[in-house]
Amino acid sequence: MSGPVHSYDVVVRWSDEDRLGHVNNARYLTFVEDARLVWLAASPAGNGGVILARSEVDFRRQVHFAAGGRLVVHTDVRTIGRTSMRIGQDILPVDEAGRAGSVAEAVARTVHVLVAYDYDRQVSRPWNDAEREWLQPFVAAPGEG
Amino acid sequence: MSGPVHSYDVVVRWSDEDRLGHVNNARYLTFVEDARLVWLAASPAGNGGVILARSEVDFRRQVHFAAGGRLVVHTDVRTIGRTSMRIGQDILPVDEAGRAGSVAEAVARTVHVLVAYDYDRQVSRPWNDAEREWLQPFVAAPGEG
Amino acid sequence: MSGPVHSYDVVVRWSDEDRLGHVNNARYLTFVEDARLVWLAASPAGNGGVILARSEVDFRRQVHFAAGGRLVVHTDVRTIGRTSMRIGQDILPVDEAGRAGSVAEAVARTVHVLVAYDYDRQVSRPWNDAEREWLQPFVAAPGEG
Amino acid sequence: MSGPVHSYDVVVRWSDEDRLGHVNNARYLTFVEDARLVWLAASPAGNGGVILARSEVDFRRQVHFAAGGRLVVHTDVRTIGRTSMRIGQDILPVDEAGRAGSVAEAVARTVHVLVAYDYDRQVSRPWNDAEREWLQPFVAAPGEG
Repeated sequence: MSGPVHSYDVVVRWSDEDRLGHVNNARYLTFVEDARLVWLAASPAGNGGVILARSEVDFRRQVHFAAGGRLVVHTDVRTIGRTSMRIGQDILPVDEAGRAGSVAEAVARTVHVLVAYDYDRQVSRPWNDAEREWLQPFVAAPGEG
Repeated sequence: MSGPVHSYDVVVRWSDEDRLGHVNNARYLTFVEDARLVWLAASPAGNGGVILARSEVDFRRQVHFAAGGRLVVHTDVRTIGRTSMRIGQDILPVDEAGRAGSVAEAVARTVHVLVAYDYDRQVSRPWNDAEREWLQPFVAAPGEG
Repeated sequence: MSGPVHSYDVVVRWSDEDRLGHVNNARYLTFVEDARLVWLAASPAGNGGVILARSEVDFRRQVHFAAGGRLVVHTDVRTIGRTSMRIGQDILPVDEAGRAGSVAEAVARTVHVLVAYDYDRQVSRPWNDAEREWLQPFVAAPGEG
Repeated sequence: MSGPVHSYDVVVRWSDEDRLGHVNNARYLTFVEDARLVWLAASPAGNGGVILARSEVDFRRQVHFAAGGRLVVHTDVRTIGRTSMRIGQDILPVDEAGRAGSVAEAVARTVHVLVAYDYDRQVSRPWNDAEREWLQPFVAAPGEG
């Protein structure tokens, strides 16, 4: 990932893990949800101006819990449309020095469609200029992702 | 339990279970919460007129998941005070014929203090007569619980 | 869905819901996971012979909780490959008579890639004949899905 | 709390919160579970040498989520018996400088009975000398708790 990404630290919980000793697949959506909310909280739209329309998850590696175990979520923007955008969120391991692993080491790679949303009127809406400007730096370079 | 109790069926989920193959301890509070909400939904107070102040859980047996596994929660009232009450909620196994196990076979026994609550004013309030009348049949006989 | 599907009843929990009063998006993966496990438990492979490689979720409608609320998951097979298959799992509303809504009323539509897996050797494996025969009736008619 | 306590940072998740905008009551058991596992991982018994027998939770304040919100769990030992111990775990707010609030500001106060356990033989066992020595510094001063 050559462009700037938003980075969010995840603390794994004992109860995230299932009988096989793996972090449960549904928890991946929880991890990226929290990363997304913190990322968007700083945007002009805030958390309240978008809605999740679609999620795709590729499960790459099984995560085993260690007490206080950590992961990191890297979020970037793939494409921005008139009323929606496609973002990438990779769930990566963290080494003892706190450095995120590479995409090749990803635990899971996820892609999501977010729609600019007017909750009062319950309809989608176009992104405004301030939102587009804020999102632009997170757009991955061509050929990425 | 000689008096009438409220009975609520729980469907265990795969993700309720942890690495040891046991239903996670925090899920017991989830099971009894749902039982309580369904029970109270039929009361004059409804779900919105009470607040949870205290929970006690005695873990008795380890529950192992089976696909589609079931448990049952039995809820009764122990004591009713001026603005609060103490209820018992036992989490029991279910046999293949759908019959609940005895208290001696309980997976967990729990006790909770619920307070009659005025959410608008954010203060406790006395139970009214309709509430007391509705609760009375669930009060366990002396010596129970 | 003209072909036979596997049907699994979901009991929504109070704690499945978030601040907006909607069932949290990650819970959809939990609902379809439980449906999948019950479905596969009856197969020659059992739960232990497959691994989840990819999930796609289209969020269609927001689900609001009602005490004891229910949903249903319909599972069918889209395509069977040499070592994997693609299945569809629709999350549908249920009316008061217990009848599932149509696909047009789906809360969410999901698609998953499951891989036939040898956990001992930690490698994928071809489906065997018994597995293929068991899966065949769940394959949707051409043009479905 | 005048004696030394074990301190564990909790990152609240969006999905910890329910429709009322409060952290769900069952999550408190999850927070203290993770604190307990990290604390015990450093002990001679490790996580695998104890079992949870009883939990008590006093709910003191309602916690509202903020993106990336944090809490802290303070763990201390109340009493040590022959084969069990009683510990206290307070869930406290954290100010912007990262300092934990006082017990008077606790979100919840919890107490748990942990039993020294031989999982192989599935029976309780006496604490050994190394365990007692390790636990001693966490015992609250008389009159505490």
